[in-house]
Amino acid sequence: MDKSVNPAPVPKSLEGRGFQVLSQCGKARRGRWVLDRGIIDTPQFMPVGTKATVKGMLPEELQAMGVQVLLGNTYHLHLRPGEKIIESLGGLHRFMNWRGPILTDSGGFQVFSLNGLTKVEERGVMFKSHLDGSACFLSPESSIQIQMDLGADIIMAFDECLPHPSPRDLVLESMDRTLRWLHRSKAAMTRERSQLFGIVQGGLDLDLRKLSLAQITSVDLPGYALGGLSVGEPPPLMHALVYEVGDLLPQNKPRYLMGVGTPIDLIEAVHAGIDVFDCVLPTRVARNGTLFTWKGRVRIKRERYKADERPLDEECDCYTCTHYSRAYLRHLIVAGEIVSCRLNTIHNLHFYMRLMERMRAAIDSCQWLEFRKECLTRFAMSEEDQ
Amino acid sequence: MDKSVNPAPVPKSLEGRGFQVLSQCGKARRGRWVLDRGIIDTPQFMPVGTKATVKGMLPEELQAMGVQVLLGNTYHLHLRPGEKIIESLGGLHRFMNWRGPILTDSGGFQVFSLNGLTKVEERGVMFKSHLDGSACFLSPESSIQIQMDLGADIIMAFDECLPHPSPRDLVLESMDRTLRWLHRSKAAMTRERSQLFGIVQGGLDLDLRKLSLAQITSVDLPGYALGGLSVGEPPPLMHALVYEVGDLLPQNKPRYLMGVGTPIDLIEAVHAGIDVFDCVLPTRVARNGTLFTWKGRVRIKRERYKADERPLDEECDCYTCTHYSRAYLRHLIVAGEIVSCRLNTIHNLHFYMRLMERMRAAIDSCQWLEFRKECLTRFAMSEEDQ
Repeated sequence: MDKSVNPAPVPKSLEGRGFQVLSQCGKARRGRWVLDRGIIDTPQFMPVGTKATVKGMLPEELQAMGVQVLLGNTYHLHLRPGEKIIESLGGLHRFMNWRGPILTDSGGFQVFSLNGLTKVEERGVMFKSHLDGSACFLSPESSIQIQMDLGADIIMAFDECLPHPSPRDLVLESMDRTLRWLHRSKAAMTRERSQLFGIVQGGLDLDLRKLSLAQITSVDLPGYALGGLSVGEPPPLMHALVYEVGDLLPQNKPRYLMGVGTPIDLIEAVHAGIDVFDCVLPTRVARNGTLFTWKGRVRIKRERYKADERPLDEECDCYTCTHYSRAYLRHLIVAGEIVSCRLNTIHNLHFYMRLMERMRAAIDSCQWLEFRKECLTRFAMSEEDQ
Repeated sequence: MDKSVNPAPVPKSLEGRGFQVLSQCGKARRGRWVLDRGIIDTPQFMPVGTKATVKGMLPEELQAMGVQVLLGNTYHLHLRPGEKIIESLGGLHRFMNWRGPILTDSGGFQVFSLNGLTKVEERGVMFKSHLDGSACFLSPESSIQIQMDLGADIIMAFDECLPHPSPRDLVLESMDRTLRWLHRSKAAMTRERSQLFGIVQGGLDLDLRKLSLAQITSVDLPGYALGGLSVGEPPPLMHALVYEVGDLLPQNKPRYLMGVGTPIDLIEAVHAGIDVFDCVLPTRVARNGTLFTWKGRVRIKRERYKADERPLDEECDCYTCTHYSRAYLRHLIVAGEIVSCRLNTIHNLHFYMRLMERMRAAIDSCQWLEFRKECLTRFAMSEEDQ
């Protein structure tokens, strides 16, 4: 067995750890974020590996398409197989054979979104496992401990996620608690190789967002995130809010928009000065046959592709597009074949990685506005026009 | 899109097409079978790609582990997506991106095994699609036409498969019909690049088998198969029957035992002089977590592997065994992750390919009996002893 995954050797090129903005075009930033386990070129997208695997994909395939950092889910890994088992096997990186950086969420979002019955107290949250209904408890201290046991490179503070919409006084109360929990999260951090990020909440209300942003950034941390967005609100409202607050986050730290989003969401958030993203969207919809192309979305199950010999996306150089026809992709998903998930996921993730790459190039060459306009036009194209 | 798959260039090394026995040790034969699309070293195992894909695997991965020939299912491909669509897209090889030889079955076995209501007439079989219940018809002529449309390198004659046990007079009647259908199958063959195989039936009765063998081999063909075995009968009875008739098949033609089997089945059939096999077993049980190792079977779902940091098989050099722990494989299957299917299938197919490779080496060096004995001992090991 390959024993070299953990600890990873630190390449010489990683000297000078930290985040640096290399160029800027409007609010859009091109940056480089150097971590112990690798370099993250920003703007960057993190595929989601909920249960210690990006569904259907192997680590080498992700690496080959340019993936630099993965997200793991604290809640899911805590319930199964358990962080102590993963720790005993050398940590999450070695367990899942991923050498690059891993960011873990705090578990807060899952606790609030997957579980009807949760009881929030000052010390933490009581909830029932969605697997077997057993009683569980997460607090800032336990969430951080789990993330450290997993060996995460980037650790998210434990926060409270309210449903939208919530009454203003409840949001204010929750923001205050989230700030107290952030202090406790920071105090619980004892692993030097891990970096703690704080999470700005406040819903869609600009004043509350700004207040939360001031609260969270009052704590000195290696980076900050916007949480509680892309949870069902109309995308234009989310884009507008992010445009107002994105650039209020500290200039010299990575800015992470959690759980976002569509290709258009990513464009709009980079336009607002965001650096890092994660989302299940490209992998999840791939499994249902919705594929992103440079000419808009394709729903590959449709009858119209039954005998279509063209590649999915003629502009794409991914394995799927260079080896298979739309007719084959349609056949696989209609037949319920596992390889359908693979080929679709390869394409969608490849598309996201190339989109981020092109965004970085557009910022570097200060052609951001033109690039943004072109993308917004292309991604709105109808499937009938392809 | 890669247009070079069909037609495949014929390498110079393919000069001298046909089958040749290179060495023999007892009845066990080591051979080389040269086809337009590639060389098949025998004894050889063909993974099953029922619906134009070996479940969970990509062609490049199969090729890398030494797979030389795949099996496709005429019945399934006829119903969905249909051979005419596949033909219009350049044939099955190009459709599924597999450059090597493909053998297609006749559809007969599926018609009889998947469909309760079938009506056998002299001209062919009426049956209902298992997908939508629609009325379908297969005859020697239509089965051969479908297989030619798919572009199969090796085409199986359309035969009747009786349930076991069946009354002797019914078996005799069916064998006579199968012989008449074989003549019609041969007459329907108009594709020069394809080779037709006849199928010996006759159930478990040695006399009937011998009679069927004499009937089928009375028709001059490039190869012959034993059909209707491994359909629920006790393995020792099957092994004994194959041992009696395997070597009665023509010496200078490939001998194919259809739908077989376990590692022990393969050893016993090679011992009887069989050259080629196909079976869904290694891929199907991989998806359920039953894994073959050089020390017997492992059921990876078991609690005992929860924190087991060892590779699945310490003697195996496959991707799964060199990169992951038993604990990770158990986690993936318990969590219902798609990658579980991939890693398990990679291992089981790799194991089968290495088993065939070692069989060939043992015959080459005339150490077949020792090798057989060692395998029978190892494969019978209990999981508790590992």
